[in-house]
Amino acid sequence: MAVQVIKGNIVHAPEIDRLDIVENGYLVLKESKIEGVFVHLPQIYQNVDVEDYGDRLIMPSFADTHMHAPQYAMLGMGMDLPLLDWLNTYTFKTEAAFKDTGYAREVYQKLAKEMIANGTTRVCAFSSLHLPSTMILMEEFEKAGMTGYVGKVNMDRNTGDVLSETTEESMRDTLKWLDDSSEKFGHIKPILTPRFTPTCTDELMTFLGKLAQERNLPVQSHLSENTSEIAWVKELHPDCRQYWESYKKFGLFNERTVMAHCVHCDERERKAIKDNGVWVAHCPDSNINLVSGTAGVRKMLNEGLRVTLGSDIAGGALLAMNQVITAAIRASKAKRIETQWTDDFLTVAEAFYLGTTSGAKFFGAQGGFAQGDTLHAIVVDDSSLPLSAKKLSVQERFERALYLMNKDNIVAVYSDGRKVK
Amino acid sequence: MAVQVIKGNIVHAPEIDRLDIVENGYLVLKESKIEGVFVHLPQIYQNVDVEDYGDRLIMPSFADTHMHAPQYAMLGMGMDLPLLDWLNTYTFKTEAAFKDTGYAREVYQKLAKEMIANGTTRVCAFSSLHLPSTMILMEEFEKAGMTGYVGKVNMDRNTGDVLSETTEESMRDTLKWLDDSSEKFGHIKPILTPRFTPTCTDELMTFLGKLAQERNLPVQSHLSENTSEIAWVKELHPDCRQYWESYKKFGLFNERTVMAHCVHCDERERKAIKDNGVWVAHCPDSNINLVSGTAGVRKMLNEGLRVTLGSDIAGGALLAMNQVITAAIRASKAKRIETQWTDDFLTVAEAFYLGTTSGAKFFGAQGGFAQGDTLHAIVVDDSSLPLSAKKLSVQERFERALYLMNKDNIVAVYSDGRKVK
Repeated sequence: MAVQVIKGNIVHAPEIDRLDIVENGYLVLKESKIEGVFVHLPQIYQNVDVEDYGDRLIMPSFADTHMHAPQYAMLGMGMDLPLLDWLNTYTFKTEAAFKDTGYAREVYQKLAKEMIANGTTRVCAFSSLHLPSTMILMEEFEKAGMTGYVGKVNMDRNTGDVLSETTEESMRDTLKWLDDSSEKFGHIKPILTPRFTPTCTDELMTFLGKLAQERNLPVQSHLSENTSEIAWVKELHPDCRQYWESYKKFGLFNERTVMAHCVHCDERERKAIKDNGVWVAHCPDSNINLVSGTAGVRKMLNEGLRVTLGSDIAGGALLAMNQVITAAIRASKAKRIETQWTDDFLTVAEAFYLGTTSGAKFFGAQGGFAQGDTLHAIVVDDSSLPLSAKKLSVQERFERALYLMNKDNIVAVYSDGRKVK
Repeated sequence: MAVQVIKGNIVHAPEIDRLDIVENGYLVLKESKIEGVFVHLPQIYQNVDVEDYGDRLIMPSFADTHMHAPQYAMLGMGMDLPLLDWLNTYTFKTEAAFKDTGYAREVYQKLAKEMIANGTTRVCAFSSLHLPSTMILMEEFEKAGMTGYVGKVNMDRNTGDVLSETTEESMRDTLKWLDDSSEKFGHIKPILTPRFTPTCTDELMTFLGKLAQERNLPVQSHLSENTSEIAWVKELHPDCRQYWESYKKFGLFNERTVMAHCVHCDERERKAIKDNGVWVAHCPDSNINLVSGTAGVRKMLNEGLRVTLGSDIAGGALLAMNQVITAAIRASKAKRIETQWTDDFLTVAEAFYLGTTSGAKFFGAQGGFAQGDTLHAIVVDDSSLPLSAKKLSVQERFERALYLMNKDNIVAVYSDGRKVK
């Protein structure tokens, strides 16, 4: 039986209010699956070669549950524009360029490598509406060692001239894409991706809802990001009291659904999210950059919603998920100020849980370094970070790493048991 | 006459509402002073060797008008604590370690190098209360090529056990430090630094105010960062209607004064800042991290206050000023949300102005690439940043660089006319 042992300062968050730290601990894998984390190496593994990372930190790798892969090409640009202008004058043009498969290959190869380099091994990504480029994105993610879901975007109305498909094209391409991709990749699977309610006709939504049910497919979309968007949905679906119902009525709002943003969800909408088992992809940097609002993450957590983190590039300008984690802390602090110091902010441990374990659960893992999961981990060398007079605890070094590290500090990455960096 | 010519894509902000861009332009220096920015190289300079940076971006380097140098040693740590706890359980202990000059040398050498590497050439820094370490900080800044001010901290009450000085020690050391440092360095000068009203007795403040006036010295301190702090000042100075008056009455609130934070200044306090010609060091990342509040920067600008930017490490966790600039944009967007979409956010151009020209003015320059100023500039190679399908404008590349670059993208740094990286 193949056994692997990895040694270092192990930090993980099995629960939201629990950070487990084992100094100079041992992570034991059997047949690529985690057997356990040990303070002392059990006798039966004494003869196994140890991959010794010395004084470095070993922690779970990150899960990015919402991002637009083609928008990597416009990262950090257009930040003076509000959401709908930003979409129309910038984003749709950027995505339209992914008609060109050569260009898509170049961008997606770089994106996939950068994500792995920055320690993201699980992703739930929007592609563009283009079938061939979507296949290229899946291929490049697979090659780089990523795991997760990619969606060909569906958008058959209200999209302007540069980027559009007819209802028929959208349905035909979706079926072909599912045929082509469902079994092709070991680690990257398709996810149904209606862009958002305003850009999808009822006919298309009906089709996607049926498909989701028949083939048991996951679904990703956007929910209650921006007040103008919410008003628009209301106009388009006068029969729906709230935005979420425009997904629910087509069968696109269930425990395999992840909804990005959820900034303006009131108590009733949050209850619907919870009751339907829907996952929230909180995108803190995007919500601030596009001045969408500050999501009430503390309320969601108190009410038992399943909250994960998304970079939402390029509404978010941060690809590295440790920066998204600290952005979530900062956004929760802005929310605390906005609520007159009422809502508690996210602690470092809580935000780390959201960006690792909680995201991993969306993809079916238990999260943390749980027995039976395959290994998703990063190894951090923090020796180049600022000098402290006293010996830092592992917890302090962990916190500092989340705030300060960049990809150069990430010296090894494991994804689904494979060493990919 | 010594003439230098530098070529590249030149971007600077002479005014807050004005971004000047000269594609493939020429920056001409005479005797190390800026002569002008030219679209075409004037005939008289045709024989001068050109330092050609090709397609790279050339922009003013950054000015950091508020930071605590010793706290570099705790960057990115303690972020779950509120301000006064953070000070007592973390910060004062960290600063106390700077009694050890060997340790101070090690930390300050690294700090100075990192600041230059990240494109900061002007700084207004708090040291600790220790005289020898303050001299070491000045020396290391000077050696690395920085310009600006360093202050030995004065704090003779309410400081706990680990870090304190008597009134007599504080006064004696300050006089000795001024004697030792005033003429010693070409580019780093002393600034009077009462930590903040709660930690300075009236006797000490009287002494510092007199010194400021007699020797025409600049002054730095903190103002209205946090509501508990404001209440505390009110208790300590019942004669003062507002916090700023506790500086004003000692002669420490004038056009050579920079006050950090100013988060909770109401109209009357803002008017006092303006009428007294005081400079504001806005510290966006620190204000969020310590949940102090969101400063009303838009109001300050509308009212004509002189606002500059500070990293405020280690309340702020971002040393790189391009990140502080984008943090200021993000904080202004949080403020826009908090004010129910009333206060306009800072545009990229405006925030860049605050972090370059506005800060430079505090140090006596005109800012931008103004004729007669010495050169403070960075050269940015953005070729490793994400790939766009269309050819980006210089303005787009500039914006992307502010959001995404790290020190590796900064390939050259000029400080007071000298190439220091």
